[in-house]
Amino acid sequence: MSDAKTNDRMEKIVSLCKRRGFIFQSSEIYGGINGFWDYGPLGAELKRNVKDLWWNSMTRMREDVVGLEATIIMHPAIWKASGHVDTFTDPMCDCLLTKKRFRADQIEAQSGTAYHYSGAKDSASGKQNSEAYAVLLPPGKPPESARKTATQFYQDRGLQQVELLGERTEKVENSQKFNPENGSLLTEPRPFNLMFKTHYGPVESEDNVAYLRPETAQAIFVQFKNVLETSRVKVPFGIAQIGKAFRNEVTPRNFIFRSREFEQMELEFFIKPDEAVEAVAGSVSKATAGHPGEPQPNWGWETWHKYWVEERIKFYENIGLPRTTLEEYWQKPEELAHYARATVDLLFKFPFGTQELEGIAARSDYDLSQHERFSGKGMGVFDEDLRGAWAKVDVDKKAEMQKRFVAEKAKNLVERKKLPEAEANTQAEAQAKIFFENLAKGQYIPHVIEPSAGVDRLILALIANAYAEEDVPDEKGKIETRVVMRFHPRVAPIKVAVFPLLKNKPELVKKATEIRDLLRPHMNVFYDDAGAIGRRYRRQDEAGTPFGLTIDFDTLGETPELKDTVTLRDRDTMQQVRVKIDELLPMLLAKIR
Amino acid sequence: MSDAKTNDRMEKIVSLCKRRGFIFQSSEIYGGINGFWDYGPLGAELKRNVKDLWWNSMTRMREDVVGLEATIIMHPAIWKASGHVDTFTDPMCDCLLTKKRFRADQIEAQSGTAYHYSGAKDSASGKQNSEAYAVLLPPGKPPESARKTATQFYQDRGLQQVELLGERTEKVENSQKFNPENGSLLTEPRPFNLMFKTHYGPVESEDNVAYLRPETAQAIFVQFKNVLETSRVKVPFGIAQIGKAFRNEVTPRNFIFRSREFEQMELEFFIKPDEAVEAVAGSVSKATAGHPGEPQPNWGWETWHKYWVEERIKFYENIGLPRTTLEEYWQKPEELAHYARATVDLLFKFPFGTQELEGIAARSDYDLSQHERFSGKGMGVFDEDLRGAWAKVDVDKKAEMQKRFVAEKAKNLVERKKLPEAEANTQAEAQAKIFFENLAKGQYIPHVIEPSAGVDRLILALIANAYAEEDVPDEKGKIETRVVMRFHPRVAPIKVAVFPLLKNKPELVKKATEIRDLLRPHMNVFYDDAGAIGRRYRRQDEAGTPFGLTIDFDTLGETPELKDTVTLRDRDTMQQVRVKIDELLPMLLAKIR
Repeated sequence: MSDAKTNDRMEKIVSLCKRRGFIFQSSEIYGGINGFWDYGPLGAELKRNVKDLWWNSMTRMREDVVGLEATIIMHPAIWKASGHVDTFTDPMCDCLLTKKRFRADQIEAQSGTAYHYSGAKDSASGKQNSEAYAVLLPPGKPPESARKTATQFYQDRGLQQVELLGERTEKVENSQKFNPENGSLLTEPRPFNLMFKTHYGPVESEDNVAYLRPETAQAIFVQFKNVLETSRVKVPFGIAQIGKAFRNEVTPRNFIFRSREFEQMELEFFIKPDEAVEAVAGSVSKATAGHPGEPQPNWGWETWHKYWVEERIKFYENIGLPRTTLEEYWQKPEELAHYARATVDLLFKFPFGTQELEGIAARSDYDLSQHERFSGKGMGVFDEDLRGAWAKVDVDKKAEMQKRFVAEKAKNLVERKKLPEAEANTQAEAQAKIFFENLAKGQYIPHVIEPSAGVDRLILALIANAYAEEDVPDEKGKIETRVVMRFHPRVAPIKVAVFPLLKNKPELVKKATEIRDLLRPHMNVFYDDAGAIGRRYRRQDEAGTPFGLTIDFDTLGETPELKDTVTLRDRDTMQQVRVKIDELLPMLLAKIR
Repeated sequence: MSDAKTNDRMEKIVSLCKRRGFIFQSSEIYGGINGFWDYGPLGAELKRNVKDLWWNSMTRMREDVVGLEATIIMHPAIWKASGHVDTFTDPMCDCLLTKKRFRADQIEAQSGTAYHYSGAKDSASGKQNSEAYAVLLPPGKPPESARKTATQFYQDRGLQQVELLGERTEKVENSQKFNPENGSLLTEPRPFNLMFKTHYGPVESEDNVAYLRPETAQAIFVQFKNVLETSRVKVPFGIAQIGKAFRNEVTPRNFIFRSREFEQMELEFFIKPDEAVEAVAGSVSKATAGHPGEPQPNWGWETWHKYWVEERIKFYENIGLPRTTLEEYWQKPEELAHYARATVDLLFKFPFGTQELEGIAARSDYDLSQHERFSGKGMGVFDEDLRGAWAKVDVDKKAEMQKRFVAEKAKNLVERKKLPEAEANTQAEAQAKIFFENLAKGQYIPHVIEPSAGVDRLILALIANAYAEEDVPDEKGKIETRVVMRFHPRVAPIKVAVFPLLKNKPELVKKATEIRDLLRPHMNVFYDDAGAIGRRYRRQDEAGTPFGLTIDFDTLGETPELKDTVTLRDRDTMQQVRVKIDELLPMLLAKIR
């Protein structure tokens, strides 16, 4: 798609979102606040539906997942353990002249002539400044322009009558070291932490810094033991959470795709390490193509990972994103985090490009181990069956498992953590010793499969996928463009619209409100009696309402055989059929569930 | 109730919440974080049910309310307009010795002898410090103790060999000016803002300070125009929102009742000013005792306010808090905020005292007017019918309405804002001029009725109300204490538990899982096959599950006339009846809806 067409489509979507009350700019009357978006009446319903469907499919419909709702502000040590305090950063450069800040890897590359200065002298006072500085000029600009900028730079540092020192020039190609707006040299990139920082308690000091969580996952790890001990669950099992997260993105962009306040739906699914599976089940299954079916005791991490990838794709199919709209991207070994064994990104073709909708990561036992180390609280689980089974594993097999374990760990340490081979082996062997000693006692730290989805980007995917324009004849046969949001009925904000043909006929209105009241306890109903029926249909097309019911004189018995029937109009086909009022509720429920 | 009994009951509730996975301390493995609580698996379901019931009753089941979901971080100017930046504060004192901070109005009153010093001298250097200081000693403590503390105070300020100056003593009764822990003088109270502060964007400066919203209401006012213009609603109508809010309470307390991160369910219901109602409907209805019934065009603010008080009580009754558990507290004129016309607090008897569950305030046009002033964006609505009606109102009546308007405004300015009478009259007349000029054009700023509920304190009320202990005989006839959570089925986290009598009989297990799968798409089902059936019942009693289904050999046809029936056990009466499997779903749905 060309850029112009892409922007055009994106603009139409943003405009419809505003016009129909799906999404507004946060704080719009105050000029907005960059990276924050509000959900209007239709958007709030759409989002609720998506979250409910995720929650129900993840928790209620399964035996092996329970829910959690943790706070956004948690103990700051959590973000030390997770690595966010130290490494959740973007590289930033400041303009040495204006102090404007740029994300280092997003600076537009510049070419031209760089004018370097070794320093400057104040000809009035004789004072000298030996800070080096440079200005990049695009081809054709006179050197005076660079000198003017450099003079400003040294004046800002206290010199009055600036005499520039040591000017030299240099040809520069595709450099990201200069401010694209004024040519000034930038500082070297420095890490900028993306967590929003605040303070809790009455004193604002370093001792009570807190962060708004940048992800919901960590709360699940931190409460793992509490949930395990209170909920009658056994590994393998999962904990699901939906909630807000915050990232102080330097350049929020693409509407609600990358915003600073967003919502996540995350599952942490805890499984046994493969060695425990092997001890208990005798062998570990290999993942095959397609969905591996119902969970089995011999599933290792690979099969569980594949299972969750397929389950998540099924979820998207169920809410109106066919498999053909998704792309599965298996991260390459060099792209993986050092603790990850595999990560699949599910991508969607947004109007602005193909981007991640969800990541499904096999995260080993890294998360729980980190929290065990930082909190000093044991994160291991005890499994009586495992202890019994391990005692019966034959010695050769144990030795072979240990060898495999060490080889894999050592390989990982060499490849991902860049350790020398000898050191990697020593570390791997030490880890193996502890791991297998615990295993013999029936103890292990669970491994984790993490399907992590972004609510807002899913909403955007659903909206982009639903948006359609069609040329159709209006009531008088004139061709007009119909904008229609083809939401799956499961996610559509309004399920059915109820229209009395005329608002000034009390019998029609009475019948229509009766039908509204019949359906309303079971689904979101919109009642509209204003304007021509064709206009009313069009409004619901834009809202994405899959079904429209018209109550007319036939409903009241004008044509006796049509008494107590209504016209059911389908949003997508625009076809109309007569349906008995008695049959409406079960028929609609079957379509929206 | 005695304090001991109260604490006992509260402790039992907190302990059950932890034991059964309703509520955990946030970040517990890191020692917790004061004022933050997580919802475990059962708590998360309970909370979801409460929020869904509120949302459905407020939006889906009504024609005149739509939903909104705004961000937690909004433009900081909003909190200027709302008054939170300037006045959302607690008075705080610091200990002059330890810097420990206290909420001024919560300091335990002290009596004893105060030792005052006018300053101190360093006998080594001769340096002098003339800062006054004092120490309060309880009766019987030797003066040396005060001198020691004062010496420390001046040493901390740089004196070496402290010689105290101008000692004098004073008898003090019930003073809040001294630190109860060490007797040191405190600073004068200073306002401490309760909003959590953060920064957005890449630079941390005064220009990009932002706050975590201390209430959800303001977002509704700020998006009022966007919603009005996109949602086919007309005044009177409301906007509902559920979401997190944050208050940096100095002393969070009473479990989840007063925490630093909490959730609100707020409705802002926009109505016409009474003058507009009078012009269109001819007169304004007076609120009567009880529920005023279905909304009518002649309702003024008083009737709308009464209506919402009654609607909210109905809501609580519907989820298991009978009217008898609630108290209606009508705020006295002197307790009202200056813009409020009436506020009713709905109180609940918590184990630690009778406290507010919800406030229903008639807030006049204050909120929208403030945002109009601060944002410069018009918040008025235009009403064609009103313009027409106003033109027909007779001149005497207009004069009378104007006189009433001025009198009321002036009275309010005198009483609440303490203005002199003449000034109050001038201001009131100026306001009247603008107001009636706009009214003649069909324009006005809507007034607001605000029912504002706290989710977490409601959860606590439901838990406290549900908690019961009973002495009942166990399976062997021995009396034991049964702990049972008598949640209304509508809010109960689990609706029904399914028990195969024995886990090692495949036919029983098969039938039980079939029944589980039949019910699961419609309600939260818990499947439990472990342990004696009596134990399984008890576990569900503590979880508050209203119904238990046992699948036994009769279900399979051992007694032919009982084939395909199950035992339905009622949590509260513990009575058991046989129910046909075919009739289960509609029967249970009728009870939980």
